[in-house]
Amino acid sequence: MRVVDIIRAIRDKLPVDPNDIRQFALDLGRGKVPDYQASAFCMAVFHQGLSNELTVALTLGMRDSGRVIEHPEAESARVDKHSTGGVGDKISLPLAPLVASCGLCVPMISGRGLGHTGGTLDKLESIPGFRIDLSIKRFTQLVAELGLSLIGQTNDLAPADRRLYNLRDVTATIESIPLITASILSKKLAEGIDSLVLDVKCGCGAFMKNEQQARLLAESLVRVGSGAGLNMSAVLTRMSAPLGRTIGNSLEVKESIEILKGVGPKDTTELTVTLGAEMLLLGGAAIDREQGKHAIHAAIDSGHGLEKFRALVEAQGGDARAIDNPEKHMPKSQSTTLVIASHGGFVSAVDSFALGMAAMKLGAGRQTVTDTIDPSVGIEVLANLGDNIEPGAPLARVHHNKDAASLFSEIAAAFDVAESRPDVTPLVIDKIAGQDLE
Amino acid sequence: MRVVDIIRAIRDKLPVDPNDIRQFALDLGRGKVPDYQASAFCMAVFHQGLSNELTVALTLGMRDSGRVIEHPEAESARVDKHSTGGVGDKISLPLAPLVASCGLCVPMISGRGLGHTGGTLDKLESIPGFRIDLSIKRFTQLVAELGLSLIGQTNDLAPADRRLYNLRDVTATIESIPLITASILSKKLAEGIDSLVLDVKCGCGAFMKNEQQARLLAESLVRVGSGAGLNMSAVLTRMSAPLGRTIGNSLEVKESIEILKGVGPKDTTELTVTLGAEMLLLGGAAIDREQGKHAIHAAIDSGHGLEKFRALVEAQGGDARAIDNPEKHMPKSQSTTLVIASHGGFVSAVDSFALGMAAMKLGAGRQTVTDTIDPSVGIEVLANLGDNIEPGAPLARVHHNKDAASLFSEIAAAFDVAESRPDVTPLVIDKIAGQDLE
Repeated sequence: MRVVDIIRAIRDKLPVDPNDIRQFALDLGRGKVPDYQASAFCMAVFHQGLSNELTVALTLGMRDSGRVIEHPEAESARVDKHSTGGVGDKISLPLAPLVASCGLCVPMISGRGLGHTGGTLDKLESIPGFRIDLSIKRFTQLVAELGLSLIGQTNDLAPADRRLYNLRDVTATIESIPLITASILSKKLAEGIDSLVLDVKCGCGAFMKNEQQARLLAESLVRVGSGAGLNMSAVLTRMSAPLGRTIGNSLEVKESIEILKGVGPKDTTELTVTLGAEMLLLGGAAIDREQGKHAIHAAIDSGHGLEKFRALVEAQGGDARAIDNPEKHMPKSQSTTLVIASHGGFVSAVDSFALGMAAMKLGAGRQTVTDTIDPSVGIEVLANLGDNIEPGAPLARVHHNKDAASLFSEIAAAFDVAESRPDVTPLVIDKIAGQDLE
Repeated sequence: MRVVDIIRAIRDKLPVDPNDIRQFALDLGRGKVPDYQASAFCMAVFHQGLSNELTVALTLGMRDSGRVIEHPEAESARVDKHSTGGVGDKISLPLAPLVASCGLCVPMISGRGLGHTGGTLDKLESIPGFRIDLSIKRFTQLVAELGLSLIGQTNDLAPADRRLYNLRDVTATIESIPLITASILSKKLAEGIDSLVLDVKCGCGAFMKNEQQARLLAESLVRVGSGAGLNMSAVLTRMSAPLGRTIGNSLEVKESIEILKGVGPKDTTELTVTLGAEMLLLGGAAIDREQGKHAIHAAIDSGHGLEKFRALVEAQGGDARAIDNPEKHMPKSQSTTLVIASHGGFVSAVDSFALGMAAMKLGAGRQTVTDTIDPSVGIEVLANLGDNIEPGAPLARVHHNKDAASLFSEIAAAFDVAESRPDVTPLVIDKIAGQDLE
């Protein structure tokens, strides 16, 4: 089928042979499909959708457009987690070592942050010396020996996704569930994994603003991932307030260490345990979620998770003293400023998008892909949703290196303090497993 | 507004400033908008439509992306006709000289044929010596002195349209009424006309297969053309059978001369008179359609239309003897073959698409833009819709230069001969003037 005929069939919701879509994706990665046809394809999919069968074909074609990593020496199941991104989401950092310490392999390839959300790579790179640009050979070696490695996307993985993603960004075709699905899964499949747990966030700080949209995306990811041969489950989580107590790279590493030590915030600890249990279950290291949770808690209590994280940092060139004594060895900002409440009452909303943007402006994130990051800056969130506070109570501690005065009122305004106690909805909204959708 | 934001707004049916759309079209013509954004724009318009106001803005921007011809020396109103294309449609050839002989100026820039429909330029070039590649200076000079000139599209007219059209062809975005409207009108507006009459065809041989679609296109063209400052009217015509008695370039020139002599077929003569009357009315050379028809009939009866055609041919380098004695001086095929009816009855359908394709295969048209045309070949249609014929009666005379045996049965099959007399619907279905839509 010619590309123009594929586009026309999608445009008109007519049948298309999955092999044609798979070939289209392969040709995309090889540069054989011109940009103008790829973008017309994306806009047609935006308007008309794409069946699960065709989204599986697109995903597999995108995966196969580049290198697919193999792990011949890894002795246990390979599981990974992907989050659709949120403010203060550092869960990968404690999660990967905890799961690895329970005996599974976690070959995790992550991205950088853009806009109001941070990226796992940026957080890792705030650890002095930590290298995310390992060779694939070293990556698979670490996965086999240590049970985990965390690196950045390389050019030879799913090149069709990179092409399509760059085009979608400039042709207003980002917000399409089948295209988001194929983009996420093609990259994850290229890691050579068996199982994948998704953390699909919804709320003001997330890509999906409402639960219905987030649920549709989660279901699409689970269905298509299952169709592409993965064990899949998705956890639907609330992103109506920042996750945990910190936003900013070095600060989030410190919080991750606290989680691994069993002294982390309640919400990030809960999410780490929940996602870890799902990963153990999918990877066959637990027989049910309860047992999975127990195993993750045990890995925290025994210190095995923290040990694994320390080993990872050392293996990837980082300074292990930063893990042992983060206060001394992690980057620190020159100044901190407390932002306080002008009146008392209940913290009824914390605008995670606004805090994410403020952290970006401090230097913790990127406005454009070429911006450089200051690992030391960020925001500590001191007042949580539902807290009853007095006038003058601290809302946040801002870690900054330059004059950040203009941001303080912006940060204060992100906290809504009202007279009545708000309903605080649970962090985990729902879990969607592959078999639930059959 | 950035291009990506324009695309997003159209995608979501949100308001867009017409100035932004106009600038988009100008930038398209200057190569400042990349292909991938242009094609995403087209697919978004395909799915979501475009308001009349924005289609006017797109049209004017596309017109202004290149040269807009001026006619400072033309002393009367400048009118033109555009047809959406049909099989056997040679109406421009008799129409332009008839209207010019009634005192208006006809600056006509035409296209070539592709697929099953022929192009005015190809028909004109079948006249030995006729040049369609005059300079714009010579074109405006002829319009001022002679009242008409017929030339081909030049690269500096509406370059944004050329870019968009080429992209639409390979991105499955041809069939969009706002995009068709802007494409047709931007080119016509660049001719420097005041008034435009449209012949919008519907039926199996036309681009628009059903009346409803054709009517929507006609209304869009009239509304947008009026919004862009033209006096507009559209005539909706049936294309369920080929127009007139001939398909093929030299044969169609001969039929055009017959129309100008008052001995043409009933349907092509009727359409010439109808469209001519509309042009005279819009151009202010007639006070109503009745008077306009009279004037066109008079230009036929007096021979002034034929004289004007002869003058045009001479002025554009053609051999005027071809007009005086077409049998002798127009190109002729080496062979003719009669295709006859296998059984008797009423001619209940004549498949103009099938006959157009057969003529193309004979060499009268192009399968791809690089094909060359044989001016001498074609098909004379001898049995008309509604005729009661005997077995063995002639259906068509095929004019061919090569062995065309394989096409004879295809041509015969285009004629449906049935037992009962068919309803023959009138050629002209409706007329839509600018004021009808206000």
